[in-house]
Amino acid sequence: MAATNGVWSEKILHLLRRMNNFYSTGSSRTRCLRFEIDGAQVGWVPPHVASLLRRHPQVFSPPQGGAVGLCPGLDSYESRSEAVDAVLRSLRQEDSITCLKGWRDEKYSVMPGCSDPPLMWMERAATSLFGVKRYGVHINGYTVGESGEVSMWLARRSRTKQTYPGLLDNVAAGGLAAGVGIRHTLIKECQEEACIPSAIAATARPVSTVSYTYEDEEGVFPESQFVFDLQLPADFRPRVGDGEVLEFHLLPIEKVKELLASDDFKPNSAMVVLDFLIRHAFIEPDSKAFYQELVSGLHQTL
Amino acid sequence: MAATNGVWSEKILHLLRRMNNFYSTGSSRTRCLRFEIDGAQVGWVPPHVASLLRRHPQVFSPPQGGAVGLCPGLDSYESRSEAVDAVLRSLRQEDSITCLKGWRDEKYSVMPGCSDPPLMWMERAATSLFGVKRYGVHINGYTVGESGEVSMWLARRSRTKQTYPGLLDNVAAGGLAAGVGIRHTLIKECQEEACIPSAIAATARPVSTVSYTYEDEEGVFPESQFVFDLQLPADFRPRVGDGEVLEFHLLPIEKVKELLASDDFKPNSAMVVLDFLIRHAFIEPDSKAFYQELVSGLHQTL
Repeated sequence: MAATNGVWSEKILHLLRRMNNFYSTGSSRTRCLRFEIDGAQVGWVPPHVASLLRRHPQVFSPPQGGAVGLCPGLDSYESRSEAVDAVLRSLRQEDSITCLKGWRDEKYSVMPGCSDPPLMWMERAATSLFGVKRYGVHINGYTVGESGEVSMWLARRSRTKQTYPGLLDNVAAGGLAAGVGIRHTLIKECQEEACIPSAIAATARPVSTVSYTYEDEEGVFPESQFVFDLQLPADFRPRVGDGEVLEFHLLPIEKVKELLASDDFKPNSAMVVLDFLIRHAFIEPDSKAFYQELVSGLHQTL
Repeated sequence: MAATNGVWSEKILHLLRRMNNFYSTGSSRTRCLRFEIDGAQVGWVPPHVASLLRRHPQVFSPPQGGAVGLCPGLDSYESRSEAVDAVLRSLRQEDSITCLKGWRDEKYSVMPGCSDPPLMWMERAATSLFGVKRYGVHINGYTVGESGEVSMWLARRSRTKQTYPGLLDNVAAGGLAAGVGIRHTLIKECQEEACIPSAIAATARPVSTVSYTYEDEEGVFPESQFVFDLQLPADFRPRVGDGEVLEFHLLPIEKVKELLASDDFKPNSAMVVLDFLIRHAFIEPDSKAFYQELVSGLHQTL
């Protein structure tokens, strides 16, 4: 438990704290309202959003006991989804809420836990206004050389992407839309983003999740990513597919480790790579400072 | 995200909740005092222990602001350790505190985080009275057959062991004593408990930690286990060493999965096995309910 390699660990711990800043003292958490449907919490509503919702009393019931909910008449998946969607579309017209400018026409499920039946759907771009938990899939693409050395494929995100342009990313990743399976999303993203044929993508192994909650001026982001490891054939090269990626790089693990402590990585993808490095024994607990904190920082949930 | 295999998941979630019951509503947490040394929190003191400590004002300063600490004169590793040890030995004489009957003469480090310098040592049996975090090492011993099928070696604990007699356990495990390294502990426990030669034990790979905090009538138990995977040669059989183990079993993964949901496992060892099953892709997130909750339940920390 010696504290060598302290600088690298400190950099990574800083990233983990940033991605979990909703749990920090001084976050908006104590001022947020719980977003509840049918008595179950499904999100967190920041104060500035709560005051907007008051203008729509036909959809949102007045805050009570630290929680905001939907009006009693909205008692089905469809009626809830459509009523909230109408409010969001009118808010979008007002042009005052930044995150709604990123409207994607992608429906996300709203549910208390990852295996609970969804209680409604919500436009992806609006989920942070309600602190609704989002799920996604991230894929670690890697190769193993003849003498056993591991290299990792990383994507450089397109410079025109809406979020995190130009940063390093996993070989493929994507959000889980309402009603779409995890494996299905994996196959689709591998194909679309990296031109990985489904026969290869199907060999990916489910190995972990990475969970965190951060907040910024736009809202609260509780997210969990389902993590897959995909060993790619040594002679296979991912290719740019749908234009979300600028280029792919195959890098030795030591280089990946070094980049992880830079600011060149999309933050949640860096967490997924850290999880890979730990699971594949590239980090030694006796010599790497704060090993236990590095692991637990990848799995925070409320 | 379909909720099949619900019964198995529910059983495992129940175990994870039990092992994290200090975080539950209704736990003693809100009534515990923080145990602080040099301004840093190193544990949690339950109310019944706090009242005992008041009888030793030469060592423990009076509770203030929800925290209990050591008297100002106790400003070194040695002086703190010896003063607290003297109190504990006198409490042990009184015979009123159950956990001190399990006195082991094993010194554990007291520190805020796993890579911080230890601020004092404390007798292992007393750590739960102060909710001092304990670290240990757990080893998943497994074999891979010619056609790739994985089997796991499990230990059946001796029926005369002080804790969890007769239950299933990992092939080897042990607590981290003050000043002793993680790898060193791994090699020692493999040798002593399972007669695994150091040349084989040294091939173990550090892959994870498992962290949890439970409480019972004796105190608070925040623990983190450093997890290693050790692939054993197909023709190697662990043998009973120091008498802590009754016998070893080699079991196919499906059988291990089934046993995990029984009450036949030492609880923290079951968590280590669950972590193995997840990392080795034996659990499929699309079909196993609450996959994400199963993963995050293995990594809770305050």
